[in-house]
This record gives sequence, C-alpha cells and structure tokens, in this order.
Amino acid sequence: MSETKIPYKIYLEEEEMPKAWYNLRADMKNKPEPLLNPGTGKPLTKEELSPIFCEELVDQELDDTTAFIPIPDEIRDFYKMYRPSPLVRAYCLEKKLGTPAKIYYKFEGNNTSGSHKLNSAIAQAYYAKKQGLKGVTTETGAGQWGTALSMACSYFDLDCKVYMVKVSYEQKPFRREVMRTYGASVVPSPSETTEVGKKILSEHPGTTGSLGCAISEAVEAATKNEGYRYVLGSVLNQVLLHQSVIGLETKTALDKYGIKPDIIIGCAGGGSNLGGLIAPFMREKLKGEADYRIVAVEPASCPSFTRGTFAYDFCDTGMICPLAKMYTLGSSFIPSANHAGGLRFHGMSTILSQLYHDGYMEAVSVEQSSVFEAAEQFARVEGILPAPESSHAIRAAIDEALKCKETGEEKTIVFGLTGTGYFDLVAYEKYNDGVMTDEIPTDEDIAASVAKLPKVNA
Amino acid sequence: MSETKIPYKIYLEEEEMPKAWYNLRADMKNKPEPLLNPGTGKPLTKEELSPIFCEELVDQELDDTTAFIPIPDEIRDFYKMYRPSPLVRAYCLEKKLGTPAKIYYKFEGNNTSGSHKLNSAIAQAYYAKKQGLKGVTTETGAGQWGTALSMACSYFDLDCKVYMVKVSYEQKPFRREVMRTYGASVVPSPSETTEVGKKILSEHPGTTGSLGCAISEAVEAATKNEGYRYVLGSVLNQVLLHQSVIGLETKTALDKYGIKPDIIIGCAGGGSNLGGLIAPFMREKLKGEADYRIVAVEPASCPSFTRGTFAYDFCDTGMICPLAKMYTLGSSFIPSANHAGGLRFHGMSTILSQLYHDGYMEAVSVEQSSVFEAAEQFARVEGILPAPESSHAIRAAIDEALKCKETGEEKTIVFGLTGTGYFDLVAYEKYNDGVMTDEIPTDEDIAASVAKLPKVNA
Repeated sequence: MSETKIPYKIYLEEEEMPKAWYNLRADMKNKPEPLLNPGTGKPLTKEELSPIFCEELVDQELDDTTAFIPIPDEIRDFYKMYRPSPLVRAYCLEKKLGTPAKIYYKFEGNNTSGSHKLNSAIAQAYYAKKQGLKGVTTETGAGQWGTALSMACSYFDLDCKVYMVKVSYEQKPFRREVMRTYGASVVPSPSETTEVGKKILSEHPGTTGSLGCAISEAVEAATKNEGYRYVLGSVLNQVLLHQSVIGLETKTALDKYGIKPDIIIGCAGGGSNLGGLIAPFMREKLKGEADYRIVAVEPASCPSFTRGTFAYDFCDTGMICPLAKMYTLGSSFIPSANHAGGLRFHGMSTILSQLYHDGYMEAVSVEQSSVFEAAEQFARVEGILPAPESSHAIRAAIDEALKCKETGEEKTIVFGLTGTGYFDLVAYEKYNDGVMTDEIPTDEDIAASVAKLPKVNA
Repeated sequence: MSETKIPYKIYLEEEEMPKAWYNLRADMKNKPEPLLNPGTGKPLTKEELSPIFCEELVDQELDDTTAFIPIPDEIRDFYKMYRPSPLVRAYCLEKKLGTPAKIYYKFEGNNTSGSHKLNSAIAQAYYAKKQGLKGVTTETGAGQWGTALSMACSYFDLDCKVYMVKVSYEQKPFRREVMRTYGASVVPSPSETTEVGKKILSEHPGTTGSLGCAISEAVEAATKNEGYRYVLGSVLNQVLLHQSVIGLETKTALDKYGIKPDIIIGCAGGGSNLGGLIAPFMREKLKGEADYRIVAVEPASCPSFTRGTFAYDFCDTGMICPLAKMYTLGSSFIPSANHAGGLRFHGMSTILSQLYHDGYMEAVSVEQSSVFEAAEQFARVEGILPAPESSHAIRAAIDEALKCKETGEEKTIVFGLTGTGYFDLVAYEKYNDGVMTDEIPTDEDIAASVAKLPKVNA
C-alpha cells in the first residue's frame, strides 16, 4: 500500500472546515414543492410555522434561493470538538474484495451520539438558544436523534424533552441513559404529560407506543408550553442544509488529493445523510460542471424511492403534520417490525424526491440479511462496527466494487458511513445466530397505503 | 477561543506516527524485578514462558535494555486505520471550570473496541500470526479486552477464543455480540471445554464464574491445544511497551505546538494505559532532561498504589500464574461488586510499581460517585461519554484544574482518556438514579489479603 500517497484517513485542518452550509435548492431548476397546510391545502407560511419551529429555522426551511448560508461561530466551535470527520480510504476492504475500485468512506460515527445527526442537532439547539427559548421537544425511536439532541442542548444549557416510544424506552435502556446523562428528560410515549398522550392511553391502555404518537406528543408539548419549540432530525430542508457539512468536507478532502469520484453512495431513510453527503457534488451536476453517479440505498422493507409514488402526503402516520410532495409509500405504511435500525420512514426529503424525479439520482433497495453480511465483512477488515443504516451504503458500495472486479474498471467510489452500531447489537445477535429474516412488502401492501394518499393530489 | 492557534484536536500526519515503541525499562536505573516461577522461586526463563506466550512477545517481556523496538509495518498499517488518536484541547471544560489551567486529553476511544486495548491486541495477534500459530486464547470480564483482541484476530485471520466470565456473558450480551461479529468464539466460563472448568463446575455447580477462573481456562486452552498461545491485555511489560504508542504520539503532538505539560495524569488498573501514556515523559525524567508531575489515579475501592504493599505476589487470584514484584493488595483481594468498570486488579505493572517505589510518580485514589460526577460534567461540555475507568483521570484532572483556579496558576495538564462508556450504561443508570455507592475496603480487609502474600517475600 506504499505505492500511493493517499493516507488511510484524510483529516482536514480546522481552517479548511466549511464556513457556510450549502443549500441545494438554490441551484435546482425545479424547486421542491412547498409544504402544504393539510387543512387549507395551501403552502405553509412563516407565520404558520413559527409557533412550531424556531424563527431562523423557519427561514432556512423556506429559503430556496440562497446558495450559501454562513455557519455561526458558536456552531463551528462545537463542530470542532468532533469534526472534521475523517474521509477514510478503505484499503483493507479493497484488498479483501480484490477489486481495482478505490473505495472511500466519510465516517460520521466518531461522536457519542454515534451518527451524523449531531450536525443538525447542534444547529437547531443554537437557534433555539439564540431566540431565547427555554427548551426544545422531540421524539425518538431507538434514540439516535434524541441522543444527538440531548448532547446539543446540554452544550447550550437548554432544556431538552424527548418523547421516546415506550417499547424502546423499556427495551433499549442504554440510549435512554445516555440522554439522561446529558440532562435530557426522557418521557416514555404515550404519556400522561400531554392531551394526545392521555387520549391514546385511555383508548388503548397497555399500548407500547409508536413514532407517530411520540411526534404528536412532542409537537403538543412544544406548542402548549411557553418558550419551547419542536425540532426534527431528518426529512426537513433545514436538516439537509445543516448536513451539507458532510459533503462539503468530503469534497474539500477529495479535491486536496486530486481525487474525482465516479459514484457517490448513501443510505436513505428521511434523506438527511444522503442529502448532506451529495450536496456539493449535486451542485456541480446541476450546473453541468461535472457528472457523478449518485445512488440512494434504501431497505427493501421500506422502499420509498424504488416502489413509492411521487405525491403529496402527510409526514407523520398520525396525519396531523404538513403535507410534503415526496416519494412515499403512504403515511399509513408500517415497515416490518423485523426491520432493524432506522430508515423506516414512509416518505423522503422533498429535495431528494424532486432530484430523483428529475433523473439526477438513482436508487436501489437491499435486503437486510445481505446488509448485515456486508456489515460483518466491513467490520472484520476495516475495524469499525457499522450501524445497520450505514450498512445499506456498505452493501451497495461492495456491490459496485465487485462489478469493477468483473469489468476491471478502476472506479472511485465514495460512500457515507453515517454511524456506529454499538446500540444495535440485538440486531447483530440475530444475524450472528442466523435467525435474521427479510420481510419485503407485497405490491398489495403498498397499494393499500398509497390508496389513502390525501385528496389534495386529485 | 480564537486568541490561540492551538486547534481543538491535534491530529498527527501518518508520517509523524511512531515507528518504534519505547521500552521504559531501558532507561530505569532500578529495573523491575523479574517474574518468578511460583514453584521454584527462581526467575522465569524464556523456555518456561514460551509454551504460554509467543516467542517474540517473550523476548519483549524479558528485554530490559533495548530502548526502542521497531513497530512492524503490518502493525503500523493497522494503527493507521484508527490512529493517530487525537490530542484534544478541552477548551469547553476549561471554560466551564473557570480555570486558568490548560487541559489536554489523549483520546483513545475512537475505535470499535472503545479503548486503548487495541494497541496491544493488534501487536500480540501479529506476533502470533508471524509464528504460524492457529490462534490465541484469553479471558475477559466486561469484554473490553476481548473485543479488542477479536478485532485484531479477525484482521490477521487468527482463531480467537475468549473465556468470558459467565455472569458477564449472560448479563452483558452486547460486547459478547461484538466479539462474535468479529468471528471470535466466546465461551462462558467456567465451561466444560477445559479440565479446570469441569472441576470448578463439579465443585460449584451454578457458579457464575470469576476472572481468576477464566484466566485458568484460557491458559489451559492455550497450552493444551497445538498452535495456540495465551495473551493478556494489561500488567505485562510487553503490553506497556505496545501502549507507549499513546505517549509517543502525545509527546510529538505537544512538541509540534511547543507545549510543555506540568502534570500528566492517567488512570491505573494493571497499568497499561498509564505506562503507555507516560513513557516518553518518564524517559526525560529518568534522564534528568525534564521534570513532570506524573499522577496515577486509582479507585478507592481497589487502591493498589496508595494502600498496597510492594512485594512479590501472584498475578491471578487462582495463584497459578507467575509471581511479580509489585504494589499489591494481595491476590485474594476482591474489590466490591458495586465498583463499576475495570481497574479492579489487585496488583500493578512491575514497571510502574518500581517507578512509584523510586519516587518518580505520585498516586491518588478517588471514590466512584465523584468519578461519575466528573464523567457527567465532562460529557456535558466536551461531548464524549467517557468510560468509568477513564473518568478516574478526568476526576483528578478537574481537581488539579480547580487548584489552579484557586492559585491562579496556568498549569498545563495532560490526561489519558482511555475510552468510551457506551457499554457501561448500567453504571451510568445507577448514577443517574442516585443509587451509586462508594465501597472502600477497611484496613482489616487489606491486611487479611496481604497476610496471604507468598512466602518468597520472607
């Protein structure tokens, strides 16, 4: 491996870190369609969004023309504690596969939240603090986003209230304890602390909760308590904006060594990581300055891009949130409970949906047993135990590298390794024990939930 | 924070990484006393050690004259996957404490094993592979060392058999699954796979095991199976040698920015991290070229340095392993079950014991509730959730920084942050719930186990 000068890990210097986020929408010819008020069917205004979200975040949400938005110094200081994240050359994986392809991954897991989610959590906490708020509320399933937010709030001394799906609260106590260590109050949802929680508990005593219900409780807690706002870890335009730090660092690191990728691969649930990773590359593609294959990888058990419909839909299963124009399986679609990790959102970022619709991106879906096979192969040679979510991208990257082995092409592949799997060992145990299953929805399953799309599409 | 040019994280370039380990013993006037054969009371020879350990590791164990031992390229390649580890300026902690002290920490947790243990695991696996062995055996309690070793063996395609204390195997399944993902076979100890295990099971049916028993099984499995050797993650001279990579990187990073530390602090269980961190600094001190305060921090529940005796003792509770001249609480001493994390070894590295005896180091002991208080304070401002072991060093570093606040001295403090606490959340939960206790041995407890020291001391 001494024939090349490219180090195993490329770390940027502090002064090379991005000073502004990049807003993909500014360079899109076809802008993503606006969020609609589900009651009126009309685009949501700043006035309608401000009781829910912080003001500057509403501005970012609605701004589809400003290309670069400066990152405040306070956020850059926090970024410096765990960023820049390394861009790693997967020398050992390449060797193991026997591929002529060159594989790089941008590793976002070197922080206690264990994923890229912290990049947006700290931004959202900062704007909440700047607005003089007391705190923020959110929901969390397994706890990745809740952990990131609790770390961010602890740094800015903000109150953080996390509604955690009750079954996770009870069965996955470790992330709950991380959140508590950072000072967050973690409430099992449904709870008696909100009207919607009380209502659900009275109608369904003994329920173990759902993400949809936790969202409803978090939104109620934000809007009914003076000095609180609601924050969200994916899907939204503002989140993709903040996550552009991933792609900007990646591009700077590649440019530093004169590396031009052929294929850029990211896993896609709500789209926060993928949207962030591809941002500066997509910019060149939109401007016709460069071409890249950009590949979204989604689970076969929740295939929004590959089997969904491009339409307006609710962002939540409870059908109380705004309508977004996106690739969706229908807001009533629920992926199999056997599906491990995240990437279980029925829809997709409106930005990525529009880009996919316009042919700027590809998408593939992969089955989870093959995802864990890739995860294990990666872990054993590259050292890092990857998150199930990230492992979708590993699967696709390995598949592309194996194609190169057949054709002899020396392609350069870059993928996003969004996080670590240290809190996902129940899923790894299933894989190790050979009892992991793949459950793919039938066409009828998808047709049934798509049939319930809101009538605004008609 | 912009008044200084020192970045939050100092990362060395690949070419600045150490090319040789530093062997502290070469510069010690009073060498550590040799290991003794417990049967004969005579120093152990290479011939006696070779059936248990790999040959090159035996050479390293016995070599007290060669100052620098080259790091083989194969090991340096692996180091490049997760090293250099960052030397972090704790700007946010300094600000929170309001101290004029400058605090740095060398963070060894950015790898899946979660700690510095990987530095020696990869070296030991390499020499086993080089010798043409089939595999290695070891024991593990909570699993930190076993995880590191399984990662190292997977990289070199070596068989890895880990005897895991049964109670941990059952109650802490997550590390077990990490090891299995890396291909290790993890056996709950005591087991039916060894004679000693069968004997213990027949005498104590239903026992949940102990580290002493797991050591005995691992040694038996290594010596009775063709092509296997036993490996150990701390205490030994060879382990301190490999861990010198921590201190060498730290010193290079400090020198690069012209920083001279006043105080160097590390937690001490068997001494692997502390011995590695201080190595090049102690070298200067031994040569009279520089002076530093060097502080070992140990748990009040297992205070080998501060309340132990400098004498020959067994390295294991089963009294089958060699005798080492060290600070010891007696090999029959068992720290309270309420003590969280590692640092529960009754003795201490012979190298560090000699240096402490000769006045080159200080030692302090700290109680675990104050350790977790420091851990929480650190996590909330610096982001990283620290391991309980590492948090002993955080406690002492904060205490020194607070002294500086009183005196106004701008001291430079460097401490070792050995790892992350992601698998220690049961202990954090106890702290969060306010039910953590401090259990300190009485003088009578210690006198009782010290009274059983082997007669070779007489």
